[in-house]
Amino acid sequence: MTRLIDNSYGKSEVRLTKIVRSGSRHTLLELIVRVMLGGAFDRLYTEGDNSLCIPTDTMKNTVFALAKKNDFASPEEFGRILVHHFLDRFDHVAWAEASIRESLWARIPVAGTPHEFAFTSGGSDCRTAVVRRERGGELELSGGLEGLAVLKSSGSAFEGFLKDEYTTLPEAGDRIFATSIDALWRYLPGVAKELSGVRAGASLGSASRAVDFGALFAEARSTILEIFATHDSRSVQQTIFAIGEALLERLPSIASVDLAMPNQHRLLVNLAPFGLDNPNEIFVATSEPFGLIKGSVARG
Amino acid sequence: MTRLIDNSYGKSEVRLTKIVRSGSRHTLLELIVRVMLGGAFDRLYTEGDNSLCIPTDTMKNTVFALAKKNDFASPEEFGRILVHHFLDRFDHVAWAEASIRESLWARIPVAGTPHEFAFTSGGSDCRTAVVRRERGGELELSGGLEGLAVLKSSGSAFEGFLKDEYTTLPEAGDRIFATSIDALWRYLPGVAKELSGVRAGASLGSASRAVDFGALFAEARSTILEIFATHDSRSVQQTIFAIGEALLERLPSIASVDLAMPNQHRLLVNLAPFGLDNPNEIFVATSEPFGLIKGSVARG
Amino acid sequence: MTRLIDNSYGKSEVRLTKIVRSGSRHTLLELIVRVMLGGAFDRLYTEGDNSLCIPTDTMKNTVFALAKKNDFASPEEFGRILVHHFLDRFDHVAWAEASIRESLWARIPVAGTPHEFAFTSGGSDCRTAVVRRERGGELELSGGLEGLAVLKSSGSAFEGFLKDEYTTLPEAGDRIFATSIDALWRYLPGVAKELSGVRAGASLGSASRAVDFGALFAEARSTILEIFATHDSRSVQQTIFAIGEALLERLPSIASVDLAMPNQHRLLVNLAPFGLDNPNEIFVATSEPFGLIKGSVARG
Amino acid sequence: MTRLIDNSYGKSEVRLTKIVRSGSRHTLLELIVRVMLGGAFDRLYTEGDNSLCIPTDTMKNTVFALAKKNDFASPEEFGRILVHHFLDRFDHVAWAEASIRESLWARIPVAGTPHEFAFTSGGSDCRTAVVRRERGGELELSGGLEGLAVLKSSGSAFEGFLKDEYTTLPEAGDRIFATSIDALWRYLPGVAKELSGVRAGASLGSASRAVDFGALFAEARSTILEIFATHDSRSVQQTIFAIGEALLERLPSIASVDLAMPNQHRLLVNLAPFGLDNPNEIFVATSEPFGLIKGSVARG
Repeated sequence: MTRLIDNSYGKSEVRLTKIVRSGSRHTLLELIVRVMLGGAFDRLYTEGDNSLCIPTDTMKNTVFALAKKNDFASPEEFGRILVHHFLDRFDHVAWAEASIRESLWARIPVAGTPHEFAFTSGGSDCRTAVVRRERGGELELSGGLEGLAVLKSSGSAFEGFLKDEYTTLPEAGDRIFATSIDALWRYLPGVAKELSGVRAGASLGSASRAVDFGALFAEARSTILEIFATHDSRSVQQTIFAIGEALLERLPSIASVDLAMPNQHRLLVNLAPFGLDNPNEIFVATSEPFGLIKGSVARG
Repeated sequence: MTRLIDNSYGKSEVRLTKIVRSGSRHTLLELIVRVMLGGAFDRLYTEGDNSLCIPTDTMKNTVFALAKKNDFASPEEFGRILVHHFLDRFDHVAWAEASIRESLWARIPVAGTPHEFAFTSGGSDCRTAVVRRERGGELELSGGLEGLAVLKSSGSAFEGFLKDEYTTLPEAGDRIFATSIDALWRYLPGVAKELSGVRAGASLGSASRAVDFGALFAEARSTILEIFATHDSRSVQQTIFAIGEALLERLPSIASVDLAMPNQHRLLVNLAPFGLDNPNEIFVATSEPFGLIKGSVARG
Repeated sequence: MTRLIDNSYGKSEVRLTKIVRSGSRHTLLELIVRVMLGGAFDRLYTEGDNSLCIPTDTMKNTVFALAKKNDFASPEEFGRILVHHFLDRFDHVAWAEASIRESLWARIPVAGTPHEFAFTSGGSDCRTAVVRRERGGELELSGGLEGLAVLKSSGSAFEGFLKDEYTTLPEAGDRIFATSIDALWRYLPGVAKELSGVRAGASLGSASRAVDFGALFAEARSTILEIFATHDSRSVQQTIFAIGEALLERLPSIASVDLAMPNQHRLLVNLAPFGLDNPNEIFVATSEPFGLIKGSVARG
Repeated sequence: MTRLIDNSYGKSEVRLTKIVRSGSRHTLLELIVRVMLGGAFDRLYTEGDNSLCIPTDTMKNTVFALAKKNDFASPEEFGRILVHHFLDRFDHVAWAEASIRESLWARIPVAGTPHEFAFTSGGSDCRTAVVRRERGGELELSGGLEGLAVLKSSGSAFEGFLKDEYTTLPEAGDRIFATSIDALWRYLPGVAKELSGVRAGASLGSASRAVDFGALFAEARSTILEIFATHDSRSVQQTIFAIGEALLERLPSIASVDLAMPNQHRLLVNLAPFGLDNPNEIFVATSEPFGLIKGSVARG
């Protein structure tokens, strides 16, 4: 005897571009959306009974239609709209989750002025949101970023670590620290609650908004960059904690943050065979292997 | 006040090539290894105290050294060796996890005979294993594959699904079904136990092996291919369950299996504007968006 | 004063799937097509005059429509159809080029029999063709493959090379040779001529075919694999020449072949710090840097 | 009879990081270098005679050693150093080519001030240089950029194009124009000559520099962005020419420029089935197929 013990399905990589016009000034929103659903879908798997199956093609259409029907300015808000739609519309959906990546477009400066409708890349990273709700539960609301490339050529050491029979790494009082930062912060329940209360289809104008998610994202991103730059690092782990602490201190709306930072090694090249010394000048950048360091920091 | 609520770290993308020689016949094993550890590492994050920090560089060295010191023929066995090493060697490690991807190399046929030491790619997929143990707990042992590309041009339908105001998908009695299969099966506790009991450093010769993981993998892979080919599919979900059922039936050593199958759409091209009909002949292959369908099947 | 000195444009990554049914047995052709055109397009660039611009969207439609209207079994034949269409249809097109990659699908074996309509990946590589014609010139016709992954763990050396002040590489009497082979063979003018003569829109049935491109591809691919496996290699360069020679010997329809073989290094790991020797057993696979070796071999 | 009609080889993806310290202020240069050589290497291919083979491993070492021994501030200068080295050092090398991609790192702003040694990504694009010399010929010197992501949501049309039986594209008076720009400009012979004259190993201090390649790159990049933003585009082709014209006008050191701009389509979503109009608000971004538009503009 066999049984289905877990299932979920959805549509991934729905690439939505939305242009909002205010006179000749355009606002550009480019999102890559994943919607996943769980619920009473067992007979779909076990019997081939599709009567309760919401096609993933319909999910895709829903993303585009709801993007047209609603006013929103952040992946958090659009995620909330999507999650509520599927739970409100279908009784047999037990939970819904929207995972969104937003491209960071920046206005092209022309003669010192940001252009009204022309954009270029605003960073190596993308902005993210994960919004989830189980029927009857609270809205779980997270925002973040992925792939923020940073490198510092000083202010980073790694010394005093444990040595065993397989250790060959020399102590380093001054090393290059290069990484690509992923962060995902969980909002306080009150923020999610306030966002949930906004009437579906209503304009989420700045007046009615509990949190200005755009301003919060900008503050989070600049905090991460600043702490990375200025923290006197004894390890990637210690820098993760320092960044987490600073985010919680500066962003009163968040409850916790998950951080992941791969250690993208720059290895000192041995130039001695060529009669050259190498006082931290010439390195080889390696893509693999890499250290993968994770930490989660919360209030309390 | 802030506190560290979770942490883990390790080394990722350690690319190991091992050649085992039996006369002029070589066995080739190419693995990409990730090792992650958790435990009493808090002071590393909060104080910059590295005294208990096992460097990720040491983990990398350990992978290579243990690959030399031990005899093994599968990612499951090598994962067990790695996990046991870190738990046995360091009291402050609370759990260890090895995630391994193995390249599928096949012997090049020369005049009908498989060559002794020359190989070519044996598939689009890679073989995988995830091995984890918490101190004091049982070994959790999984094997699987990732990225098995398949396509069938008949024997697949999608009809009778739920329609709502956002549904435009037509019913399809005969459609192309293309996907890239990921599967991860959990071994029964007895298999993991027997594997754990093998003395560290000892040869895991075929005589002493509880399970022939290589034969099991081959059986699992051919089962997945066969069921995909022959199952009369009413949905991706139903095919997932059918594959899961067959794996549990044919592989007595496994307890459950997780399956994920993206629906890589081939869309019928509208040739009517050119005065041509298109009776399921000409399709456009799309890479995004895609349906993402998941299911887990277990005994009992 | 400035002037346009060169221009070309086209459509890339047109992903075509074609199913040909013979009773319940299906033939599957999956091609990724690029069409590029050159000609009297200057005013498009310099004046914004689009009157002679064939939109790339039209090129995409043309790929799908011609795939429906014509019978073909190889990327070479379909490339010829496309190139002829654009030259025949538009007097202001001076040259047309089709570059095609074909996925290698293999029938899934079920109980030892290849399935009629279910397929899995047939290799890491893809089959390719490049077809080009300048107005008034001969058809230039090439076929090939890209990304054929191979590795041999013996039968490869690299010794006796030039040493200078920057050389640290030790001589290697027995090393791993891993690469990903790209080959592109140019057909003899007669083959291209005969293919060109086939009436447009006519069935390219096996009877009328000058060359069985499918059989030729299979012969080329197995020759490459066999020579790679059996050639006693003193360098990647020497193996390239050996493969080129064998292709010219076995394939009377081709005039020359271009080969490119990146040297994907497997580096012997130094295990001496751990008290272990390493007689060519444990290697680290590296993705960069890599040696890039190219050679072209012709008759005569 | 067969013969080698062409050959070249080299080392690719050599990832060099160089830190130059001026007190506590660091300059960071991250380059990915490819070196290719041609010359009297035939016996390497045809005879397996390695006596004239400069190993690619030596090329890699040479990149690191010359990066240490020389002062340079641009990929153009480092490319010149590499190319001259191989031609000067080895009589049997007939030509040498260095292709370099430089990561764009920008100083992290801390309290409004650019940090002395901490950096984040400065754009989606990378800076490039291609430097080549044939023995006895002039230095051929090019600089450029690759992957500059831009999008404008107005100021772009595509109308009045040729229609044939396969055209379905509607005329568009106002469309989204999204692309990723590649540009490669050829310097005037005088610039290359002056750079060539700099004594090998000498400091290429700003005083002795014929061209400030860094300032030129910044000017080129901002010109491309500005013209993209402000040009009233009737086609991608016309915008290419407008960018080329502006580059030649503003950069007196360059002779010509090659531009390539894929048309990364944003397609208007049909919302009519949902009772919604869509006045250029909701688009789907597609990754394939894409238009590929190229043009070269020169003086004279």
